[in-house]
Amino acid sequence: MTQFQARTVAFIGLGLISGSLARALRASSWTGTLTAWGPREPSLQRGLELGVIDQYSLDLSEVLAAADMVVVGAPPAATGEILGSLVDVLTGLNRSPIVTDLASIKGHVIDSMARSYPNFVPGHPIAGSEHSGVAFADGALFRGREVILTPLPDTASDATEQVKAMWDLTGAYIREMGVEEHDALLAASSHMPHIVAYALTRALERDDSDPMVHGGGALRDMTRIAGSDPLMWTDISITNQAALLKAVDSFQDELASLRDLIASADAEALSDYFAICRAHRREHDDILNPLTGGESEEIS
Amino acid sequence: MTQFQARTVAFIGLGLISGSLARALRASSWTGTLTAWGPREPSLQRGLELGVIDQYSLDLSEVLAAADMVVVGAPPAATGEILGSLVDVLTGLNRSPIVTDLASIKGHVIDSMARSYPNFVPGHPIAGSEHSGVAFADGALFRGREVILTPLPDTASDATEQVKAMWDLTGAYIREMGVEEHDALLAASSHMPHIVAYALTRALERDDSDPMVHGGGALRDMTRIAGSDPLMWTDISITNQAALLKAVDSFQDELASLRDLIASADAEALSDYFAICRAHRREHDDILNPLTGGESEEIS
Repeated sequence: MTQFQARTVAFIGLGLISGSLARALRASSWTGTLTAWGPREPSLQRGLELGVIDQYSLDLSEVLAAADMVVVGAPPAATGEILGSLVDVLTGLNRSPIVTDLASIKGHVIDSMARSYPNFVPGHPIAGSEHSGVAFADGALFRGREVILTPLPDTASDATEQVKAMWDLTGAYIREMGVEEHDALLAASSHMPHIVAYALTRALERDDSDPMVHGGGALRDMTRIAGSDPLMWTDISITNQAALLKAVDSFQDELASLRDLIASADAEALSDYFAICRAHRREHDDILNPLTGGESEEIS
Repeated sequence: MTQFQARTVAFIGLGLISGSLARALRASSWTGTLTAWGPREPSLQRGLELGVIDQYSLDLSEVLAAADMVVVGAPPAATGEILGSLVDVLTGLNRSPIVTDLASIKGHVIDSMARSYPNFVPGHPIAGSEHSGVAFADGALFRGREVILTPLPDTASDATEQVKAMWDLTGAYIREMGVEEHDALLAASSHMPHIVAYALTRALERDDSDPMVHGGGALRDMTRIAGSDPLMWTDISITNQAALLKAVDSFQDELASLRDLIASADAEALSDYFAICRAHRREHDDILNPLTGGESEEIS
C-alpha cells in the first residue's frame, strides 16, 4: 500500500469519530500535525487538552491553508453543505488538498455538493459507539472494522490511494464500492432493521394489553435499537430515503410470504424456512459477536 | 393465600421446566413427595439421581393413583392429547386429582382435550432457558417471573386456588386471565417478534450483497432469536395460528404507516414517532433487563 504522505491533517468538526481517527493516527507510525476547526470552541479546546489534536483555529481559511488532508466529520444532512463551503474556500485559496468525509450515507452528501472536486474521496467508517463527543475518542475504534470508500468517476486515483493509506494506519480494512451500492447495503444492514424495531415497538405501544410488561429476552433484543436518537434516525430516514424504502419493501414482501405459510399451516415449509434462518444466523455469529467469537449466545 | 395441600405431586414428562418446578417445591417449606412418569426412562433416572424427584414409575396408572396434583410438561401440540389420555385413565381409576399444564399456548391445548375435567387448571409459567432437559433444572427459574393461569368456566375454584398455592411457593407472581387473552398476549409479546426476526433474517439471506457480513449490534440483536429451534417455532406458529396472524397483521399495518412517513419525508412526524418508541422502550427497561435494572444498556 502507498505510504500516507500528508504532513498536516485537518479535522472539520471534532467529535467521537473524527477524534478517534486523530488518536489512531497519533498512535501510528505517522508523525505529522493534527489540526482542527469547528463551530464550538469548547470541543476544540477539550481535544487540545486531551492531546487528541496538536492545534486548532476558529479561522477556517487558516486551517485549510495548511492542510494536506481534510476530514469532514458532521451528520449526513450537514456534510454535503459543509463540503460545498469548503470547496469554495479552497478555490479562493487556490489550494486543492485531499478531502474526505465520514458520513453514513453517501448519495445525499454527493448530491448536495454544489460542484465537483476531484480530490474529494467519499468515505464511511462502519464503527461507532453509544457515546458522542471528543472526550470519548478512542484510537482503537477502527481496529478490525470496515471502512467503505465510494470514489466517484472524476475522483483522482492518487487521492483515493492517500485516503486508503490514512485508514490503513488505524487497523481498519478498506473496501471500495459504488455510492448506490453503499447506500443500499447500509439500508439493509442497519437502517431497515432500525425501522422494523421502531414499527414493532410502536405496535406494542398501541396494544392495550401492554405486551412489553410480559416481555422477555426476545422483546428486549427486538426493541433495544428503538431507544436510539429520534433526530439522528429522522435524518437517516430522509437522507437515505430511496434505498431505505426499497429495503423496507423487500422485508414487507418476505414477511407477507412467511405469513402465508403460517396461514396455510404448512409445517414442512415453515420448518424449512426457520432452519434456513437459523443456519444463516449461525454462519454470521462470529461477525455479529466479535467479542465472544460467536460463542455462548443465549437463545430465548 | 391458601396453603398448598397436596401430599404427592406427579410430573407427567420431566424436563427443564417441570424439573425446575420440582426443585423449587423441594427448596420450599412444602414437605410432600415428588414423583414422575415419562416416555423415556433415562430422563426419569437422571432426575432421581440428581434429587429432582423422590421416585418414578413407567406405569402411568401407578403414578396417577397416588397423585394429588398432576403437572403435565410437554410441547403445546402434544399437551392436549396427553391431557385427554390422563382424564381417561383417571376416570378408570375413579380419581380426580388437580391437573395443570405448562404449555405456552392455551387455546389449542383446551380445544384438543376430548372432554372437560373440572379439576384441570390451564397454566403457563413465562420463564425459560436456552437449555433443555432435566439436568438444567433450576429451582430459582420462576423467582420474580410471571405465571399465567387461564381457568375455564367449569374449572373448580378450589383447584385454581391450589395451583396458585403451588406456584406461590416458587417465588413467581400469578396472574389470571382468559384463554384468548393469554394467547393474544403471547402472540404479541413473543410469537410475532420471533416471526419478524425470522422474516428479517430471511430477507438478509436472500440479499446478494450479504448485509450480515457488514452487520453490527443492530443486526446482532434483531436476528438473535432467528437462531431458535425450527421445530418448536413451527409448532407454536401452527398451534397459536389465529392470534399470531392477528399480531402479524397489526405489525404489518404499523410498518406500512411508518413507511408512508418515510416516503413523504415528514421529518416532524418521524421524529415524534421515534420519540414515542424511545419513551415506551425506556419505560420498560427495568422489566426487559431485570439483571441490570435497566441500566448500562448499549445503544448502537
